[in-house]
Order: sequence, then C-alpha cells, then structure tokens
Amino acid sequence: MSRPLHLANRILDAVADLSRDGLGVTREAYGPGEEAAMRAIEGFAAELGLAAERDRFQNLWLRLPEDARSEPPVVIGSHLDSVPQGGNFDGLAGVVAGLLVLDRLRGRAGLAPPLRVLALRGEESAWYGKAYTGSLALLGRLPASALALPHRAGRGTLGEAMARSGVDVDAVSRGEALLRPHEIAAYLELHIEQGPVMIARGWPSAVVTGIRGNIRRHRIRCVGEAGHSGAVPRWLRKDALLAVAELLSSMDEHWRVLLQMGVDLVMTAGICTTSVQSHAVSVIPGEVTFSFEIRSQDSDTLARFDQLFQEACRGIAASRGVSFDFDAALTSAPAAMDAGWIARLEAAGAARGAPVERVPSGAGHDAAVFAGSGVPAAMVFVRNANGSHNPHEAMDTADLLDGVDLLLAALTGAAAKDVSGLAA
Amino acid sequence: MSRPLHLANRILDAVADLSRDGLGVTREAYGPGEEAAMRAIEGFAAELGLAAERDRFQNLWLRLPEDARSEPPVVIGSHLDSVPQGGNFDGLAGVVAGLLVLDRLRGRAGLAPPLRVLALRGEESAWYGKAYTGSLALLGRLPASALALPHRAGRGTLGEAMARSGVDVDAVSRGEALLRPHEIAAYLELHIEQGPVMIARGWPSAVVTGIRGNIRRHRIRCVGEAGHSGAVPRWLRKDALLAVAELLSSMDEHWRVLLQMGVDLVMTAGICTTSVQSHAVSVIPGEVTFSFEIRSQDSDTLARFDQLFQEACRGIAASRGVSFDFDAALTSAPAAMDAGWIARLEAAGAARGAPVERVPSGAGHDAAVFAGSGVPAAMVFVRNANGSHNPHEAMDTADLLDGVDLLLAALTGAAAKDVSGLAA
Repeated sequence: MSRPLHLANRILDAVADLSRDGLGVTREAYGPGEEAAMRAIEGFAAELGLAAERDRFQNLWLRLPEDARSEPPVVIGSHLDSVPQGGNFDGLAGVVAGLLVLDRLRGRAGLAPPLRVLALRGEESAWYGKAYTGSLALLGRLPASALALPHRAGRGTLGEAMARSGVDVDAVSRGEALLRPHEIAAYLELHIEQGPVMIARGWPSAVVTGIRGNIRRHRIRCVGEAGHSGAVPRWLRKDALLAVAELLSSMDEHWRVLLQMGVDLVMTAGICTTSVQSHAVSVIPGEVTFSFEIRSQDSDTLARFDQLFQEACRGIAASRGVSFDFDAALTSAPAAMDAGWIARLEAAGAARGAPVERVPSGAGHDAAVFAGSGVPAAMVFVRNANGSHNPHEAMDTADLLDGVDLLLAALTGAAAKDVSGLAA
Repeated sequence: MSRPLHLANRILDAVADLSRDGLGVTREAYGPGEEAAMRAIEGFAAELGLAAERDRFQNLWLRLPEDARSEPPVVIGSHLDSVPQGGNFDGLAGVVAGLLVLDRLRGRAGLAPPLRVLALRGEESAWYGKAYTGSLALLGRLPASALALPHRAGRGTLGEAMARSGVDVDAVSRGEALLRPHEIAAYLELHIEQGPVMIARGWPSAVVTGIRGNIRRHRIRCVGEAGHSGAVPRWLRKDALLAVAELLSSMDEHWRVLLQMGVDLVMTAGICTTSVQSHAVSVIPGEVTFSFEIRSQDSDTLARFDQLFQEACRGIAASRGVSFDFDAALTSAPAAMDAGWIARLEAAGAARGAPVERVPSGAGHDAAVFAGSGVPAAMVFVRNANGSHNPHEAMDTADLLDGVDLLLAALTGAAAKDVSGLAA
C-alpha cells in the first residue's frame, strides 16, 4: 500500500472511530463529534510535522512550517461536521485531501503557491437550520440573529454551542471578519459527489463548474374540498390531490423539455401529503401540502422556472376550483466557480494523461460562501456511491487520491506557470 | 308548524342532544351514544302509541299496534350509529322517516301494506373496520371472525361491545339469522344524500337507482430511490412522487373520457404521502404510499378499470424505474335497487305532481345488504349540504318530509294497486 493511501485510510478510519453512532457517524456542529475530529486532525498534523492552530472561531488552520512566504495563500478547505447518523466522507474527505497535499509538499513548499489547509466547523444545516456557519462567521457574514437559532433537538442555541466550543461569540455577533477576501488567493475544496453521475459515468474525480442555487418553497397548500369518495361526481369535485398530481406532471414535462434544450435544472417535490388529520381511503382529498424546490447554476433559469410554476398553479386553480397558498420562497444564489482555476484543474488533468470532466454541484458547499465573498473558488469532486448524508456513503480512497493528485498538479502547475495570477 | 315537521324536529333534536360531542355527534356502534338514541326512539314510539321491541341482536323494531296482518311486511329501516364526531342525519333521518310514516298511518294501517320500522345498529365501519354489522348479523351473514375485530381506539373487540349491549353473541357467531329474506316483502331506506348532486340540481328528494360497489386498495407503495435533490440529474432519478403524479393524472384523464362515454364511475386516491420518516424538502422521494378506490354501479366497469389501473402502474414502473407494491384489493359488489319499487316511487312522485329524479348512491347502505340477500330493496335520498360523516351535515327537515311523503305515496299506491306483488 502506498504511503498516501495508508495515511488517508488511517486518518479516515481514526476519525470514523471517534464519531460512530450506530450505523453512521455523528459529528455535531460545535459538538463533541466535531471537536473529537478536530483533535484527531491536530494529532495527525503533529505526527506529520505540520503547523496547526485554531482561529478565534475554532476553525483549524494547517500549514507547512517552513513556508514563510507572506503573499496571500491558497486555502484548501472543507468541514469536519456531519449530519446526524451521516457518512464519514462528506466534509472530512476534503480536510484529509488538504493534509495529503501538505504531506506531499513537505520540504518542497516552493513547488506550489503558499498553502493553508482549513478545517471548518458547522457546515451542515441539520443541527441549527443554518448551513456554512463556520465559513460565514470567518468572513464576518454570519448574521448575529443566527446565534439564537435553536438546536434541532432543543439543546440550546447555536450561540451557546459556539461558546462551549471556545468560539469568541462576541466577535461573531459583532460580525468581525477573521479573514478578509483579499487576504487569500483562492479557496479550493475537494468533496465527495453527492449524486450518482460520476459513478454512472465512471469518473474518479471531476471539476465542478458551479454550485447550483435554488428557490425553495417548504410548504405550499393546495386547498380543494373534501367529500365522500362515492357520492360526489367528478364535475362537483375539487380534488386537491389530482390538482397537485396534474401540476407536478406538467412541471415534470416542462423540465424534460428544458433539459433537452440544454438548460441546467433540477426540480423536486420532496414532501407531499394529504392531510394526515383528515385523510381517509374514501374521502376526496380536501388539502394537500407539498414542497417544491428548483435548482440551477443560472439565476435567470431559477427565476423563470419559478414563474412558470406559479403560472401552472394559477391555471390548475382555475380549471379545478382549488387554491394554492404559497409560503415565502427562499432563494439561494448560484455560485460560479473561478474560470481560471477550472482551467488549471483541467490542464492538470490533461497533463497527467487523465482528463477530467465537468460536473455541476447540486448541493451547497463552503466554496459557495467564499465565492460569494469574491474569493476565486474551485472544487474537485470525488466519486462516491449512495449519495451523502447517510451512513452508506462509499468513497474509494483511491479515488480520493486521484482528486488529491489533481489538486496537487493544478497547484504546482499554477506555481510553475502562473503564480502571479493567483493573487488576482 | 305542521305536526310532522314539529315531530321530526323534536326527535332529531332530542337524539342530537343525547349524542353531542364537541362540534358533532358521536353515536358509537354498540356503544353509549347509539344506545341512548335507541332509548330515545323507544320513548317517542311509546308517546306515539307504537309497538316497539328489540330483537336478540338489539336492533329495534316498531309497528302500528293495531296492524295484525300476517303476510311479510315491508320494512322501512336505517341505522342509529354515527361516525366519531359525525353529523346528526346520516342514519337517524331514515329511522325518523319510518316513525313519521307509521305516525301518518295510525288508525289507517290498511292504506299501506303491513309495515315495520327497523332501527339498525352498527352500520358505520369507523368503529371496528366493518360496516353493516347490524344488518349482516340480522340476516345471519356476519362472519364469526368479525367478532374479533378490534375497536378503532383499542377498546376491546366488536364481540365484546355487542355482548355489553345485550346482543346474543353466541347466536351471531353461529350465523343464526333472526330474519330470513323471504320473511319480508321489501326493504326501503330513506337516507341523506352524501354528495352534493341534489343540492346542485335543486332536488329535495330522489330515487336511488343502485348502490355503487367498489374496489379498494388501502395501501399501495410506489418505491423509487431517494437521493439528493440537487445532485441527482433527471436521467438518474427514480422519483416515486413524480411516478404517482403521472399515474394519477393519467387515470384522471381516462376517467374523464369514460364519463363522457356514459360510464358510471368515480375514482379517488384519498391518502397519498411521501414517507413521513424520511421525506425532506431536498430529498428526492424514494417512497410514496397511496390508496386507490374506484366505485361503479357496474361490476364489469369496476373490474376493467382496475385492470387499466394495474396496466398504468406497470407502464410507469417500466418507464420510471420504480416499482409498485399492491396490497390485496378489497371488493364490494354493486347492489341494484328493485326495479318495481323504483317504478312505484317514480309513479308516486308523478302522481303528487312533483316528479323525482334518479341518482346513484356512491356510498354503501344497509339496503345493499338486504339487496344482496335477495330482498327487493329501494332507497329515497334526501337533499343534504356538506356531505356526511362530518358535523356540518345540513338537512332541511322540510326535505325529509318531502321524502316521507314520497315513501308514503309509494306505499299507499302499492297497497291500492299492487299489494299482491309485494310478497314476491
């Protein structure tokens, strides 16, 4: 077994062992599993002779101790927390990738631009309903109001958990930025793919083109009229379920056509239920509650498809005598990845004789926060079976190393040919 | 206020007062509300000078005391139980109608064929999952296994509740018939319409052509594959909800066409839910559970539409990569109403100068049990707003009296012109 493979497996296994929770792993944001993972990474950093320190918001920074260059560094980052009973690789893989890059550059720091590895906290929204709290706080962008967000199981607030973890909560609440965008040259993140495309296509690693934004409605009510299933003829029915079925089927058909036309789009109604209080086999559904989410790398596509959705609702309301009550739409803007870094990663792939393909990221990542602050950001995806946020995540460590190679090749290529551009 | 109107309102109000339960009324099958209603009807029978007795299964029989004729009587029946928090008129209206018919014939029994009014128990399936327990037991057709059915809230079994009510449960479990079909000439039932057709059409009463049978599947599972809503592209999705939406929309369209072609049919998916344990706004639905019910007055239509449904499921399973797990289909045969009695009721309507229209009954009734045993059965529907099985049932007592007039006219017409035919 090669040294990087052995090292990667040791770190991945050690952190998994510290955070097992039944079938999966649990590393609660600003909680014990995440803290244990932080300490394990600090231990491996010490073993490898890397310099490690935490910032005042308890994110962990690693670097090559001999690298004294003062220009803005490239940051390789990801997060250490997980969802409850999640998988071991979502987040952790990116931190391990950073460690492996540093390990490969020991004694040869000059081959790459100045580098920092960043292990972030609190990326998962599962714990306090808000994602990216570590990177947002770091950049001074976490709203003070977020500190009052309650824990999913009622165990206090985000601010309280941060304080217990040693975070300077006053500074967070003042919006103090520990890092300003111009202080780093780029933010690179390796992450497992959370979808099945790379498995289906046979790609061990790929370059991310952009992070899809989304428009989400958590709770739309379609209100019709309940009635006896045997006694009300079709012409007098206001069946809320058949209305929603027609709506979703027509949107699905629009989606199919738009994909044929090359538009980047996914749509999902993840929740759909007749009224649990009053539904019955022989009662015409008088109310259906459903969610509707659309995602795209393009803001314009999001806005237009959302309009199409609302128009479809109006049409069905008129034809079927039902009404649709919308909750507020929550919008998250798409984040484009940096064209220069996409090109460097592709060039690195081509140069090593294993060209990499482009994929969109459907899920959000800390990279989107950095991109949103104006930092050139890029991502490498690593093939992973069974999606993420579940105990069945399955990344082959060889694929992780393929992604690490790609990062390293892009970094050394950048250092060789284009170092001056990094600070742009 | 006319005497019949005053009397009807007194009885309806008295029984409602005995069974109020928050907004609605609750008269549990073989429970206290039903027993209180039985006693109230016995009290009114005594006040009106009618003979009343209970059979060994605790159904209540009323008759004119002076009517000593021995030929098989015509029975006017309905039930006294209600669903939980139901309305006051579903069932009770038919018993009150019988009382009013007897009251109108006091001292003039010879104007009609021999008559009995029957107040049945246990018609609603809401309590033990089985409908028509009173009429089935009476005719020796309640399976002994039904006695073990559990109460909806776990309060013992049907057999235990029957025993507490004084029912001879041993006789029920032996399948002893207290009434054999040839012992009665006909079974007539007045009932509120449980749909909105008569309101929409402006008909105070109507003649029922037949009681729709049904094929019901309580729980069909559509199994697809859960996945990250942002990360799985359309071509790799197995979205169980979009599969069910397509299924229901296509069945809805078939239904629309069949109605245009004159077929008697209703279809309802009363329950449809993504998996409550695992659904989320940003998870592609991996599983949807839904019910599917079709009703028709025609057995052949039921069987063919059910086949069409299964074919549609197979087609969608193939095209979308999902599977459908069916539970056993429960079938209830349609019941045709007696052509002779339909004709008598229509003739009575025409003779009084207020012709009556025909409507199907979408809901099941005790009349279907009698028809299924070979008893000539007929029903009169009375206009009612807001459906049934809810506290908002709204029957105008004047409409009830219109139905009573129709029954009375058909009975006296039958006595005058066609008495010999009644015992056929």
